[in-house]
Amino acid sequence: MFDLDEHLANDTVEVGDMPLSRVLLMKDARFPWAILAPRRPGLVEFHDMTQADRRDLMEEAAIVSAALRKLTGATKMNIAMLGNVVRQLHVHVVARSEDDEAWPRPVWAVGTPFPYAEGEAEACALALKSALGI
Amino acid sequence: MFDLDEHLANDTVEVGDMPLSRVLLMKDARFPWAILAPRRPGLVEFHDMTQADRRDLMEEAAIVSAALRKLTGATKMNIAMLGNVVRQLHVHVVARSEDDEAWPRPVWAVGTPFPYAEGEAEACALALKSALGI
Repeated sequence: MFDLDEHLANDTVEVGDMPLSRVLLMKDARFPWAILAPRRPGLVEFHDMTQADRRDLMEEAAIVSAALRKLTGATKMNIAMLGNVVRQLHVHVVARSEDDEAWPRPVWAVGTPFPYAEGEAEACALALKSALGI
Repeated sequence: MFDLDEHLANDTVEVGDMPLSRVLLMKDARFPWAILAPRRPGLVEFHDMTQADRRDLMEEAAIVSAALRKLTGATKMNIAMLGNVVRQLHVHVVARSEDDEAWPRPVWAVGTPFPYAEGEAEACALALKSALGI
């Protein structure tokens, strides 16, 4: 049984499900920031996934990356699996711009999340969902 | 023609070549930190690679991740493609421990690199090369 980590659930709104991953949008208006969590129980390290799941996960990450890039016109996409705080395996896909708060540093541990206006996170999630065709 | 970015070359010692990627070790004694640079000219975004290259790159990253984990006994592996500073596509594979300088934050933009003792980076690179069988 797949259960989404509580921190991930609290920090995001749901975008939708791709064949392997649940796609989420971080509730941080500073950065267009998606997260993919493969719907498999107990995953922690990328190297402990099956080869087929690794391939599927990274293909889904590439699709999300291309979609977010197109939606935002970002300068550079950042893709990362960290997991130091939340161990459940998840992939960050973040659209970066030269005028964003953290540039050129990574987004993690920089400043504090800025809340979206009422309904805006859901609207962004819907735009991404539509771009992904899911 | 593949040319390794000058910053990547300056900041690393060479480990060796896997079928797709050149494997490098960051000259920062604070973290066991490998970098994979696929030997293809002009790559910037993961989503712009061919599907086959994406698969091969991430399989090589998984192999390096498992090897570094085994060599170091790390608590958690971090895998990331950022590219905000160096645009040539490269994958960071970093072995993290709860007592390292940046934990639990990511390693980028934290403090300053600490030099390895004379010959130590090369010894680490050789240990990784041997573990990878390359």
